[in-house]
Amino acid sequence: METICAISTAPGMGAIAVVRLSGPRAFEIAATLFKDPEGFQSLEPLQAMFKHLYDGEQLVDQVVVLKYAAPRSYTGEDMVEISCHGSLYIQKKMVDMLIERGCRMALPGEFTQRAFLNGKLALPQAEAVGDLISSQSETTHHLAIRQLQGGFSKRLHALREQLIQVASLLELELDFSEEDVTFANREELRHLLQEISLEVQALAQAAKFGNMLKEGIPVAIIGKPNVGKSTLLNALLQHDRAIVSQVPGTTRDTIEDTLFIDGTLFRFIDTAGIRATNDEVESYGIQRSYEAAERAAVILYLTDDASETSPRSLINEFHELQEHIDLHDKRVCFLFNKTDLHPSMTTGKQNFTIEGYPVIRISAKQQVQVDTVMDELRQYLATHHLQDMSMLTNERHYALLTSIGQSVEKAMEGLSMQIPTDLLVEDVRSALTDIGTLTGTITTDDLLNNIFGHFCIGK
Amino acid sequence: METICAISTAPGMGAIAVVRLSGPRAFEIAATLFKDPEGFQSLEPLQAMFKHLYDGEQLVDQVVVLKYAAPRSYTGEDMVEISCHGSLYIQKKMVDMLIERGCRMALPGEFTQRAFLNGKLALPQAEAVGDLISSQSETTHHLAIRQLQGGFSKRLHALREQLIQVASLLELELDFSEEDVTFANREELRHLLQEISLEVQALAQAAKFGNMLKEGIPVAIIGKPNVGKSTLLNALLQHDRAIVSQVPGTTRDTIEDTLFIDGTLFRFIDTAGIRATNDEVESYGIQRSYEAAERAAVILYLTDDASETSPRSLINEFHELQEHIDLHDKRVCFLFNKTDLHPSMTTGKQNFTIEGYPVIRISAKQQVQVDTVMDELRQYLATHHLQDMSMLTNERHYALLTSIGQSVEKAMEGLSMQIPTDLLVEDVRSALTDIGTLTGTITTDDLLNNIFGHFCIGK
Repeated sequence: METICAISTAPGMGAIAVVRLSGPRAFEIAATLFKDPEGFQSLEPLQAMFKHLYDGEQLVDQVVVLKYAAPRSYTGEDMVEISCHGSLYIQKKMVDMLIERGCRMALPGEFTQRAFLNGKLALPQAEAVGDLISSQSETTHHLAIRQLQGGFSKRLHALREQLIQVASLLELELDFSEEDVTFANREELRHLLQEISLEVQALAQAAKFGNMLKEGIPVAIIGKPNVGKSTLLNALLQHDRAIVSQVPGTTRDTIEDTLFIDGTLFRFIDTAGIRATNDEVESYGIQRSYEAAERAAVILYLTDDASETSPRSLINEFHELQEHIDLHDKRVCFLFNKTDLHPSMTTGKQNFTIEGYPVIRISAKQQVQVDTVMDELRQYLATHHLQDMSMLTNERHYALLTSIGQSVEKAMEGLSMQIPTDLLVEDVRSALTDIGTLTGTITTDDLLNNIFGHFCIGK
Repeated sequence: METICAISTAPGMGAIAVVRLSGPRAFEIAATLFKDPEGFQSLEPLQAMFKHLYDGEQLVDQVVVLKYAAPRSYTGEDMVEISCHGSLYIQKKMVDMLIERGCRMALPGEFTQRAFLNGKLALPQAEAVGDLISSQSETTHHLAIRQLQGGFSKRLHALREQLIQVASLLELELDFSEEDVTFANREELRHLLQEISLEVQALAQAAKFGNMLKEGIPVAIIGKPNVGKSTLLNALLQHDRAIVSQVPGTTRDTIEDTLFIDGTLFRFIDTAGIRATNDEVESYGIQRSYEAAERAAVILYLTDDASETSPRSLINEFHELQEHIDLHDKRVCFLFNKTDLHPSMTTGKQNFTIEGYPVIRISAKQQVQVDTVMDELRQYLATHHLQDMSMLTNERHYALLTSIGQSVEKAMEGLSMQIPTDLLVEDVRSALTDIGTLTGTITTDDLLNNIFGHFCIGK
């Protein structure tokens, strides 16, 4: 195993920079930076020491060094942390010196990858380290820190135990298959699989929600041209400015379409494509609306026909949508815009609903009741806020959990259809493989490169 | 004294960030960040500990904490260093939490200012910390680290002792002044003042050179329009590219006119203004040349008349320059450009001189002998390289040393002219005040603000 080094603090000039070494030669290499290598060698782990750091006879810097002895370190290997002055020259010089003395420059995320490979962190915890560092909002920070704590591990472990139980029952049968006897209690198996399926669904839902929190909760503003979609978006974003200023700036390309509310990111899906100039284009526009609605967690259905209580055309459109899209886990809200054209009209949340969904009368242009619309978005969060925030949060987790769910479903179907036991076992094994991939007990180089390649160097 | 806090690592996202607290309440405030304040309180100084950091019930991060107990810390006060994950969210959150708990955000350079005020560093050492952090080249780095080590202190101390000796001799006289007797041995005084004057001159020269090394050694390329000044500069810069790539990028606005040679910055003074279209403008052009030459440490005198060995017009121009500018401490080199127009001509350093200065035949356009020009710049460094690099390096030091020199000169003159003793004492006291201001035993808020206000926050 090579000894790696990197600057672990943010790039650029600072008062302090921290250089880290990890690997079997970390202590030996670091010792050569000092006039009294023995003094460094005899330093106790976790004991900080102020030292002069030399390149030959040349004083390079006055530093504070700290040793971590394996396995009690972040990576699980011997590690050295050197806090030096944070000039660009010193940072570069430190790395150059370490490389001259036998270190290799660390790859992105390599410290954390080693922590995972040395069993210090499960794979989703290691992934959480990357999420933690890139967190810019309170919500994504909390998600990452919970995931880092590894609360999900217990649930995945229990799930795995249950699947192993199913597999054992089935494999016991296979051992005696030539005698063509069914040993396993099919009812017990079915019950077990059902339990597993429910848990997998819950985990998958949580992972999907976690991923949404990270990427921004998708909100579709749906409506015909000129009903005021852009005006509404601008009105929301304008409210947002004050809120955003409390959070570090986001670097997303689509900044104009995202919005932090109480520290949670919302992402608006553009549906500007609905233009009913002729039949063909209209159907294309409707298609775009369906796609937006499909991806959305919240649908803001906008009309400019504020004067009616239930505009016929709006309801027809909505019925059409309902036929194509499953709305059961989406929050829908009808917005009747342009109340400014009807000065006597009562604005705000109405005491009637359409298809069971709330109606708000607003004037996006005059910023009337825009807060009430934001409250609808907050409501979505409030109803979906999971008790147990120790969830998995990325696409990879969601994809694997979905795949596990499908295998379990297949096994349950197979059980009903009395398919041969060896085929049932295959589904259960496939689910077990997916769990292994999820927790990191089964990995490939590609998988690891893919995960850790997105980390910054020095972590 | 308030307890201050700041992020001490470079701004932006990194694997690790370091937050520092300094002041009488540092331990007490830091303790409130942990579930077991007692555990933190009982932590030994310099003993690193891995801890979970909480805001109320909310886990914020997993951190490593380190205590430094006064006076054994950078600032001389109680200090706490917290290494946290380097997300923007966590960095901001940490500072917010510390401020909520009674810290004040540190001003730029305030940690170092406290180190100075608590007697951990002399003022020029504290100034060196700022220089050290902004160093981008090996040379400026070495200057800063030497200054940080405080080698100059001994010399300034000796100088101060000598001045105090002069002052005491003179003041002894004053005590008996009514008796109108001259006690002090005037010869001894003169000798002492002469010694002081020489030392002050040496220190001032070193400070001037140190400042030049920091700001870039000024090089004037002087010559009429179209002799190839820009081509030469480009040719030099082109050579430079390879060299620069070994040094972190500089952020100066005038990047196109500066050049690192062997880790030392050279700064080219633009003299493009010489345009002899009519008398008035010509004289303005000559004036510009004089100014450039005045500020330069190296003068590259360029002509395109490569065919002659001593072009009359060039020599006339140069005589004119010599009459206006003191060249004794400047390196001058004549460059005969455009050898490409005379293919048979020998290029490179010639075995004749002009006015005692070397002559190099080059072709800037074809990059012929540009290395030889660079060698001239290196030669300047070689002859000026001070044995004792423990020098003072900024404008402030140079200005004060110059002022001390003037006071000492005045005292010497006064001595020759037998002016009253109380006037002599005044000059010596003025020199002593300047030394105090230099080392920081005498300071004003303005002076400190001016020095530390240019530091980054967190240092």
